[in-house]
Amino acid sequence: MEKYSVVGKRLPRLDGLAKATGEAKYAGDIILPRMLYGKILRSPYPHAKILNIDTSKAERLPGVKAVITGKDTKEMKYAQGDGLVADQYPLALDRVRYIGDEVAAVAAIDEDIAEEALDLIEVEYEELPAVFDPEEAIKPGAPQLHDHAERNICWKTLLKHGNIEKGFRESDYIREDRYKTVTVHHCQMETHAVLASFDTSGKLTVWPTCMGVHQRRNLLSEILKIPESGIRVINPYVGGAFGGKFVLLSLDICAALLSKKTGRPVRIVYTREEQFTTTQTDYSIIIEFKSGVKKDGTLVAQEFKAYSNKGAYSGIGPLSTYLLAVYAIGTYKVPNIGGETCSVYTNTPTSGPKRSHQNPQLRFALETHLDMIAEELGIDPVELRLKNATQTGDTFPTTGKIISCGLSRCIQKTAESMNWKEKRGKLPRGKGIGMGCTYFFGGGAKLPPLFSPSSAAFVKCNPDGTVNLLSGYVDTGTGAGSMYAQIAAEELGIAADDIKVTLADTEVTPADVASHLSSACYATGNAVKAAAADAKRQIFEVVAEKLEANIEDLEAKDRQIYVKGSPERRLSFSDAVKVSLYEKVANPILGRGYYTPGVPFGNFETGEGGWSPTYVFANAVAEVEVDEDTGKVKVHRLAVAHDCGFAINPMDVEGQFEGSASMAQGQALFEELRFEKGQVLNPSFLEYKLPLSLDTPERISIAVESIDPKGPFGGKEAGEGSTATTVPAIANAIYDAIGVRIKDLPITPEKILNALKEKGGK
Amino acid sequence: MEKYSVVGKRLPRLDGLAKATGEAKYAGDIILPRMLYGKILRSPYPHAKILNIDTSKAERLPGVKAVITGKDTKEMKYAQGDGLVADQYPLALDRVRYIGDEVAAVAAIDEDIAEEALDLIEVEYEELPAVFDPEEAIKPGAPQLHDHAERNICWKTLLKHGNIEKGFRESDYIREDRYKTVTVHHCQMETHAVLASFDTSGKLTVWPTCMGVHQRRNLLSEILKIPESGIRVINPYVGGAFGGKFVLLSLDICAALLSKKTGRPVRIVYTREEQFTTTQTDYSIIIEFKSGVKKDGTLVAQEFKAYSNKGAYSGIGPLSTYLLAVYAIGTYKVPNIGGETCSVYTNTPTSGPKRSHQNPQLRFALETHLDMIAEELGIDPVELRLKNATQTGDTFPTTGKIISCGLSRCIQKTAESMNWKEKRGKLPRGKGIGMGCTYFFGGGAKLPPLFSPSSAAFVKCNPDGTVNLLSGYVDTGTGAGSMYAQIAAEELGIAADDIKVTLADTEVTPADVASHLSSACYATGNAVKAAAADAKRQIFEVVAEKLEANIEDLEAKDRQIYVKGSPERRLSFSDAVKVSLYEKVANPILGRGYYTPGVPFGNFETGEGGWSPTYVFANAVAEVEVDEDTGKVKVHRLAVAHDCGFAINPMDVEGQFEGSASMAQGQALFEELRFEKGQVLNPSFLEYKLPLSLDTPERISIAVESIDPKGPFGGKEAGEGSTATTVPAIANAIYDAIGVRIKDLPITPEKILNALKEKGGK
Repeated sequence: MEKYSVVGKRLPRLDGLAKATGEAKYAGDIILPRMLYGKILRSPYPHAKILNIDTSKAERLPGVKAVITGKDTKEMKYAQGDGLVADQYPLALDRVRYIGDEVAAVAAIDEDIAEEALDLIEVEYEELPAVFDPEEAIKPGAPQLHDHAERNICWKTLLKHGNIEKGFRESDYIREDRYKTVTVHHCQMETHAVLASFDTSGKLTVWPTCMGVHQRRNLLSEILKIPESGIRVINPYVGGAFGGKFVLLSLDICAALLSKKTGRPVRIVYTREEQFTTTQTDYSIIIEFKSGVKKDGTLVAQEFKAYSNKGAYSGIGPLSTYLLAVYAIGTYKVPNIGGETCSVYTNTPTSGPKRSHQNPQLRFALETHLDMIAEELGIDPVELRLKNATQTGDTFPTTGKIISCGLSRCIQKTAESMNWKEKRGKLPRGKGIGMGCTYFFGGGAKLPPLFSPSSAAFVKCNPDGTVNLLSGYVDTGTGAGSMYAQIAAEELGIAADDIKVTLADTEVTPADVASHLSSACYATGNAVKAAAADAKRQIFEVVAEKLEANIEDLEAKDRQIYVKGSPERRLSFSDAVKVSLYEKVANPILGRGYYTPGVPFGNFETGEGGWSPTYVFANAVAEVEVDEDTGKVKVHRLAVAHDCGFAINPMDVEGQFEGSASMAQGQALFEELRFEKGQVLNPSFLEYKLPLSLDTPERISIAVESIDPKGPFGGKEAGEGSTATTVPAIANAIYDAIGVRIKDLPITPEKILNALKEKGGK
Repeated sequence: MEKYSVVGKRLPRLDGLAKATGEAKYAGDIILPRMLYGKILRSPYPHAKILNIDTSKAERLPGVKAVITGKDTKEMKYAQGDGLVADQYPLALDRVRYIGDEVAAVAAIDEDIAEEALDLIEVEYEELPAVFDPEEAIKPGAPQLHDHAERNICWKTLLKHGNIEKGFRESDYIREDRYKTVTVHHCQMETHAVLASFDTSGKLTVWPTCMGVHQRRNLLSEILKIPESGIRVINPYVGGAFGGKFVLLSLDICAALLSKKTGRPVRIVYTREEQFTTTQTDYSIIIEFKSGVKKDGTLVAQEFKAYSNKGAYSGIGPLSTYLLAVYAIGTYKVPNIGGETCSVYTNTPTSGPKRSHQNPQLRFALETHLDMIAEELGIDPVELRLKNATQTGDTFPTTGKIISCGLSRCIQKTAESMNWKEKRGKLPRGKGIGMGCTYFFGGGAKLPPLFSPSSAAFVKCNPDGTVNLLSGYVDTGTGAGSMYAQIAAEELGIAADDIKVTLADTEVTPADVASHLSSACYATGNAVKAAAADAKRQIFEVVAEKLEANIEDLEAKDRQIYVKGSPERRLSFSDAVKVSLYEKVANPILGRGYYTPGVPFGNFETGEGGWSPTYVFANAVAEVEVDEDTGKVKVHRLAVAHDCGFAINPMDVEGQFEGSASMAQGQALFEELRFEKGQVLNPSFLEYKLPLSLDTPERISIAVESIDPKGPFGGKEAGEGSTATTVPAIANAIYDAIGVRIKDLPITPEKILNALKEKGGK
């Protein structure tokens, strides 16, 4: 008999039909009676003083109901959730710092009038010198964006473990490399949108695009100075987030203030151009790695230095800076390791987390750097990685024990499935195969006070044997809600279809750590499991009495509660709920449960400590073909193996692998938000290139199940960590194919042709 | 120091502002995208066969999206919640039984087109003989409405306790009277409405006018054959229910079916005429009472017989019939008591519960009957009542012990406050004073399977010290939601304003016994208190550890948690939640609680058993002036005393007394839904007379607090029971004023003049 009935099964998404039919409503779809349409006026300059704003003409335009400027938000300087760097106003007070910076907002009876009103707002600017490159911005004498940030340093993390100098002295071989990545965007299909509505009691209801309703509520509470319970955040469907909807943006505050001013609901929906130019982008990073190894490939010492382009404002800069350092240290055992990560303000859009949070950039650097070391030592890249790979029971330099780790199995499985041994270095010219590995946070994190430190869930049992499950988690499109149905169903011994899931409404669902750092399965999944177990315990009490059995002897499966070993002594789940309701004291069987990642915060300055209760590991192998005449790269096959702990829904897990691989493929080969003096040149899908269906390789998705001892049914994370493996896998495959190294992303045909020309020239 | 900080206080309603500003949305206010408007075609005959229905013309009318008839609902014969008499289809299958009976329904893009479509539906009827009076209908040979109901008897309850014949033999004085009441209506300001919407997954969401969302869900689940969890019932604001929105009506099914057929949301809102003619009315009842008493006024035996007009369908007929019998037996100690109640089908609209559920009619009979006995015996009516009044510790003939009873205090208090002794029988001709008493169910009831046997609540604590409370109760306008905030706040030691209450959404709020038989305070209030206590226990655990104190020594008050006797050792409520979240294991403090009225069902046929865990008692004294030239009655002063156990919110309790007295005043003096051959003649507020502000007497509201040992803070019920006292108080006062007895309601000027003429003639 199989161990599980519901988890581990390839079940369709519960929300699939609603999404496929267009019935699913996103924030920008919601219409309320008397609703107004908001638009935001933005700075045309990358850096300027605001001398004066005259809104009088805009206010006189018929149909315009309110205009707000920096004066209305001057008490609202805010930090995002980490609470560390408060450097931004919802609307610029006296200075703008990037092209797109928010200057004023308008609410009108339709979008055209709102747009027209923006044109009527007269803003007098005095341009200031601007800086766009982090290495320029950090130089003495560069234009300084924020008074608090000397040399434009937003945050710096200095991590050190072991004796790095000694490590290098003891190494047989030392190598240094420098890499550069560009700005890319999440390209969520749904642009940012928000609907805000104050009622007469002063209560604010918000339908945002976000990744955590409780987090969003708490931030709004801080900024607007309304008690938490005076704000209700309800999450509609989300059309992809990928980290980009983690922070609150100007529109969220503006919609609320415009609603307060007008007494009417106000909706703001960003255009695709606004999405590209004014929502958070991914970080562009300059990364240097220096490694010392023994002849046999054993890593002895490693040092890194990374400058990331923070853009105009901090966002969650300290967290990002810390993470970039932390991600450098966990995939392999390196006894002496350290480095510096630094985020630097420039006059470009603010950057922030994107799926795997800078890890793809970092792995691009580190994993190609390792491949070069392997080549120099004459060791197969697979062997080098297996030799150094982290194992279950190891300890990370700055944090606790690794309680489950399937990295070596990931490496072996992809290598096998892609015939690595037969192919690596042996394919005809123009064809190549390459590998990349990573680790990632696998169980969410306990974040500072503005975030809930735990996830919780309620379970309500209905007499017909169905169950309502309430969780505060935001399903950004990953299928988390369906996963919770599976987890609760397995625990209760019923079917996933029997569970109706209500997610993410601060008024009715319990708090949640929010969708971040892969919290979905481990943090919220464990809370859901605990709530279901609490309900099951109550049901078992009823059944034990009814069947005259011991509670410990009962088992829930197939909508029945059995006495183990005597399957004829049973009560259906539905009957058990009915017995509790109608024969006993009418206990309606309400379960509650919570789970906290529990690990104390890491130190953002030293990288010490850790956040996640567990970690995931992943590996990708890509097989490519490079056309040496055109420089075009075709990815033929791609295998992704990811230690997801346990695949609650293998189909969904594979979907995550495939989605993340696609995103990584874009970052490796196509994607770049191009700038000229701070101006985005390609803010549309016509000009910003994403991989399309014809670019999709043949895929092999391998869920490696390390069965985490504390994860729900052993589950951890899927689809965030793996993003980071495909970028270096493709880069390393290109080298295997044509023997040139491109050290800056994306690896475009032009760069390949140039590199080939240069190599040929030599 | 006062015992309580929050309960017992005159706090304003939490929903007051929303209602006063019009922000509150009722079912008929909700608009969904693509919504259609539904209308129902009704029978023009009181009794007829349907030979044929042709909907083709209606279907061809542009804008009409669906037409349904009895064919679409032929598998849906249903009973209301008691599950006993299934005699009705959502749309008539082959026979109509009253003028207004539902024959077909239409959904169209606007109301005008829907109305026009009704005119295009061709129905061929064959008229049948009809019967309108229960005493006629019960006769052999009368037209029979339902095959299952011989002599048109819907339900009969035969209750017997003691030896009635012996009782009469032992009596010194025996008296018999016969009374008659007419059909009145609840006259809710909000007419019945429903919005139903099926989604692509087959899930139905309903915004109805109802009194219990879980009850409504379960009924819809039964009738539509959808699992309970496939239906979500969300209750909007309710504009008054008074029992009339307890049952499900045809519109509820029709809207759902039309939505299913069209794939679009469908809303049906009844017109005032539909409200008067096709929603459930109150019962008209013929009541006979026979009492045997000792010379000193001690009641020895009582016998009753009552025929109520059930109208065309059962509704909750068995329950109503049972209750009518049960209500006859509890206010006074009568050792030998019994009788028969019988509900009889006629070709008139179906009748059902209305505030105090037939008790006003019953008390009109019994309390005026008692006054006549008192007169005959030369005993003051107050003394007669005090002598026989039920006391705490007494046992009802058919049920358990009375655990709290303030009836004698009610009688004494109103008599005192109205100067009874100085006035009764001593006022100048044309002026009079009269009294009426009652008992009523005070703690809700545990109803059959389609109703939840318990009420439950969730409590979520926010780190800012506010609390979300989730309860399935429907606040029909009574202020129950605000009361729950008070109860939870008192338990948690915070302010009522700190509590945000979410009510009545089957998806997110726990199940509830539904708003019926005064369940609000006792049943749901106890559940709320239990959930808050559960949260408090968790908070106390945290605080005890933090303050190094014993849990038993802690006290919660004024948003603080103190060590008793050492008020300086304290933690604010908000800090306690924060400590739990951020210093301990991140327990988010989720409370849950439930309560069941617990008493087994009464036997509908014998009246044995009982439902309510406790009972309330009430008394009214009215002072009236009768103009003997015009017959007009002016109620000058009215005192109502009601043993509500404990007034959680005295202002709200008084509001309930006043509202119920107004309703009773209308029933006593003005209200009658007049019929001619089954046709309602006065279905509008122009012709159906209600008491207006100028008719309002000076009022004295007295909350008698018997402090129920099991009620939340001692609370029971307010405003339902008291309705029944004012009708006989006014009738008895009229007799005191002019010496004539009107034994049929309403006591109109015409009846008074006729009675005076008759008396004068004698």
